[in-house]
Amino acid sequence: MKNHEQTGETPTFVTHLECAMTGARYEADRLHGLSEAGRPLVVRYDLDGLGKALTKDALAARPTGFWRYREFLPVRRAENVVSLGEVETPLIPLPARFAPNVLVKDEGRLPTGSFKARGLALAVSMAKELGLGHLAMPTNGNAGAAMAAYSARAGIRATVFCPADTPEVNVSEIELQGATVWRVDGLINDCGRIVGEGKEATGWFDLSTLKEPYRIEGKKTMGLELAEQLGWRVPDVIFYPTGGGTGLIGMWKAFAELEAIGWIGPKRPRMVAVQASGCAPIVRAFERGEEHAPLWQDAHTVAAGIRVPAAVGDFMILRAVRESGGFAIAVDDEAIIAERDRIAREDGLLLCPEGAATAAAYAAALADGRVDRADEAVLFNCATGLKYPMPPVARTLDHRPPIDWTRF
Amino acid sequence: MKNHEQTGETPTFVTHLECAMTGARYEADRLHGLSEAGRPLVVRYDLDGLGKALTKDALAARPTGFWRYREFLPVRRAENVVSLGEVETPLIPLPARFAPNVLVKDEGRLPTGSFKARGLALAVSMAKELGLGHLAMPTNGNAGAAMAAYSARAGIRATVFCPADTPEVNVSEIELQGATVWRVDGLINDCGRIVGEGKEATGWFDLSTLKEPYRIEGKKTMGLELAEQLGWRVPDVIFYPTGGGTGLIGMWKAFAELEAIGWIGPKRPRMVAVQASGCAPIVRAFERGEEHAPLWQDAHTVAAGIRVPAAVGDFMILRAVRESGGFAIAVDDEAIIAERDRIAREDGLLLCPEGAATAAAYAAALADGRVDRADEAVLFNCATGLKYPMPPVARTLDHRPPIDWTRF
Repeated sequence: MKNHEQTGETPTFVTHLECAMTGARYEADRLHGLSEAGRPLVVRYDLDGLGKALTKDALAARPTGFWRYREFLPVRRAENVVSLGEVETPLIPLPARFAPNVLVKDEGRLPTGSFKARGLALAVSMAKELGLGHLAMPTNGNAGAAMAAYSARAGIRATVFCPADTPEVNVSEIELQGATVWRVDGLINDCGRIVGEGKEATGWFDLSTLKEPYRIEGKKTMGLELAEQLGWRVPDVIFYPTGGGTGLIGMWKAFAELEAIGWIGPKRPRMVAVQASGCAPIVRAFERGEEHAPLWQDAHTVAAGIRVPAAVGDFMILRAVRESGGFAIAVDDEAIIAERDRIAREDGLLLCPEGAATAAAYAAALADGRVDRADEAVLFNCATGLKYPMPPVARTLDHRPPIDWTRF
Repeated sequence: MKNHEQTGETPTFVTHLECAMTGARYEADRLHGLSEAGRPLVVRYDLDGLGKALTKDALAARPTGFWRYREFLPVRRAENVVSLGEVETPLIPLPARFAPNVLVKDEGRLPTGSFKARGLALAVSMAKELGLGHLAMPTNGNAGAAMAAYSARAGIRATVFCPADTPEVNVSEIELQGATVWRVDGLINDCGRIVGEGKEATGWFDLSTLKEPYRIEGKKTMGLELAEQLGWRVPDVIFYPTGGGTGLIGMWKAFAELEAIGWIGPKRPRMVAVQASGCAPIVRAFERGEEHAPLWQDAHTVAAGIRVPAAVGDFMILRAVRESGGFAIAVDDEAIIAERDRIAREDGLLLCPEGAATAAAYAAALADGRVDRADEAVLFNCATGLKYPMPPVARTLDHRPPIDWTRF
């Protein structure tokens, strides 16, 4: 149960990387960004070997937290594992708001308070393994915080670019955790362009969503962990707040790998990509039957984490959603905030706006019949609600007697 | 591994309650505040029966989170367990700042982002079991948030009083989670007086630290969990940020109960009570050899959670510290913030000021020889650092080319 220690060398089963679009093969253990086709690279494993080396019982005896899935991950040497205490995130029902088969997976319990820790723990560990000295990324807040914290721990320099209106708490957190953070007068795609354009001049490595192969492997642990928590089965439907979509893609990959080693059957959850009405490129492309999702103009939503006008992995998200029999759905800001407030008030769980968006989407899909009340549904709350603006409270009391007790 | 479900009835081994000062016996399963002597009540168990009913192996097979210790807890009926996903909090070394045998137990991963969740989960569950309809408490922020969230979930009305300068995030969080929160022009003891005085007129139940018997049982789980994480042994020394001191008292009780059932030996950690120089009543009483700690005048510190001028369990804290061979130590705000900033920058872990105080205290005790470099030390980070003020960042960048890359 010593969850602060990694035990020995990490036996990895990585065989190679491949282009998610063309299938072209790339060598493992080398530095890679996008493929030659300009598309994300995904990591492939010797799943036969993995299935023979690891049993469910052996796994069950390990400390909690996602490094228990190390055979499914690409880090070769245990000393390169960069860890900040990645707990198993809980599944929490919302008994007042929904039926007992609707569960929130609360990713806000991870280091730096968001699911971005999963991807960045892996990306930074691999950056360490590959000897990188300077990492850079665009962020709406949470990814930058995770990159900062894991980079600090790895002793790697980190530079972060965020939209000018990123909340103060995110910007301060990034800087406090050792990164240099710049507020940029634009959106996350403008920040991303700066990171890309500066690569040659600065020598930094671009850690943007899906522009390197390993964040997806970290996000994959959401799928592994969820299946293990449910006793090696999957739920009927997953509602996932979709910006860059790495987590949705990662979970889809996780389920395929688990089936390949025989730990789950062929059943898959329906994957539902949740976006905000003010920034819904994936929803638009899904509804039009298109393979790619062009840039969304004038993106705006209170759910900053899904304010992603263009996703490099658009085709991977759409492919997973369609293969799963799922759908893409947009909810407006009013519904998001109303759902956040209602769930906090009635069920005592303060979701982030992106997490609340999945609850609003679930409610809408229930109403229009796209999900059934009997379906076991998992809603991803991707970050702690504490990082987001909340309504102020003005109620004051003078402590000197006499106090008018009828006020209470 | 289904950590969102409680399995069946809770076999409890509670025999009675007793006054922590006089030892007078009180009946279990009845509503109790303080004892007739005006002192805290503590819960006593049939430890023989408990030790026969539960094995370490049976425990190891249970879902993670502190409800796994249900035999050590007072809730009789499973349907009264109020839960928000109480994960096992990780032990995280600080390799850049300290030796590998110095571990942070990061309590910020619990519901509502602080260790207050432990105590309030139990207190609210017992309030439900005992049929209470309205709970009230004074808070510096985190306890109020935890009471609000658990009360919302239990469907119990909650009223909270906090000092006027309590950070906006805490006040908003409390209100959003269904409680009614009042800012009071005073400190936490003034708020506490209001709660006490209003009991009769309002009918609310006073859930203040140690003024009811069950928060201590929740905090006890820190000791149970820590011992289990370390393979059923205790560390050499524990640095604990001490306001009301429930956690320190609770852990001390946990270790005694674990020894009584033979799961750990007689060894105890040295318990170190950490306070801020601007509010150090326990340190003053410890140094003077006194049994009680009178009210500290003009209390002030950035570590709001330990800005507790008077603790009703003062004698229990001092007793545990002395019995353990530990000590009480104060650190100033400058050292607290410097330590927070340094650990975030070098080790990527953003502690709360109270947690940073334990790190500053460890460094001071190492320097003056009160702890040895070889000691295994556990520092309690009692809350997420995200709820506290951080330095602002002003760095901005125009995204339009040309960008001067030499700036990075």
